[in-house]
Amino acid sequence: MLKINELIVDLYECQSNLDDEEFLCSTLESAANKVGARIVRKITQKYSPSGVSVILILAETHISVHTWPEYGYAALDIFVCGEGKDPEIAWKVVKEAVNPASFKISRIVRAIGNERRV
Amino acid sequence: MLKINELIVDLYECQSNLDDEEFLCSTLESAANKVGARIVRKITQKYSPSGVSVILILAETHISVHTWPEYGYAALDIFVCGEGKDPEIAWKVVKEAVNPASFKISRIVRAIGNERRV
Repeated sequence: MLKINELIVDLYECQSNLDDEEFLCSTLESAANKVGARIVRKITQKYSPSGVSVILILAETHISVHTWPEYGYAALDIFVCGEGKDPEIAWKVVKEAVNPASFKISRIVRAIGNERRV
Repeated sequence: MLKINELIVDLYECQSNLDDEEFLCSTLESAANKVGARIVRKITQKYSPSGVSVILILAETHISVHTWPEYGYAALDIFVCGEGKDPEIAWKVVKEAVNPASFKISRIVRAIGNERRV
């Protein structure tokens, strides 16, 4: 049985600079390292006039953040799989760095238990 | 008010080849085009012995798929924003191409309504 945990987090009124792609990338890297996930690829994208996307591809999953600095808002997805890999640990790292005044979390568990039958 | 729609889909017993990164990439591209989203970046990653990740960065959001061919399983995230951009249209394109025997969908709406107050 393979279990995948996904956290979908809305971060409101963030105190950090949501237009700083280096800061956001290093924050997600710290989060991935802390959770024990292997980073396979890093992708950052800066938008005009503002906004950043950072996606880290982990071993078969990802962590992503998309920001709208004009709203102080960031959309975070933490998607990890594997024994003992807890997305809450990664979320704690991002929360401390990005420092939102409030947030909303959806927790999704994906379980893969069936071998292909066809 | 900015509204973001996210579909989190588990695809089970997929009939298509989940180890074919070209097929998966072109499927997500078709899905993004059909929904009217602008593709900013394309990233594909092949794992050993099997499994593929494809992530398309769209204008400030993304579509991603991670596959576990040994389970016939794919984890799809469709995350789009903007007036008239319906993730269900993208999901229909992927469903037809990947052809799962069954699937499970979580629908998440993220609304950004507050200007930054700090």
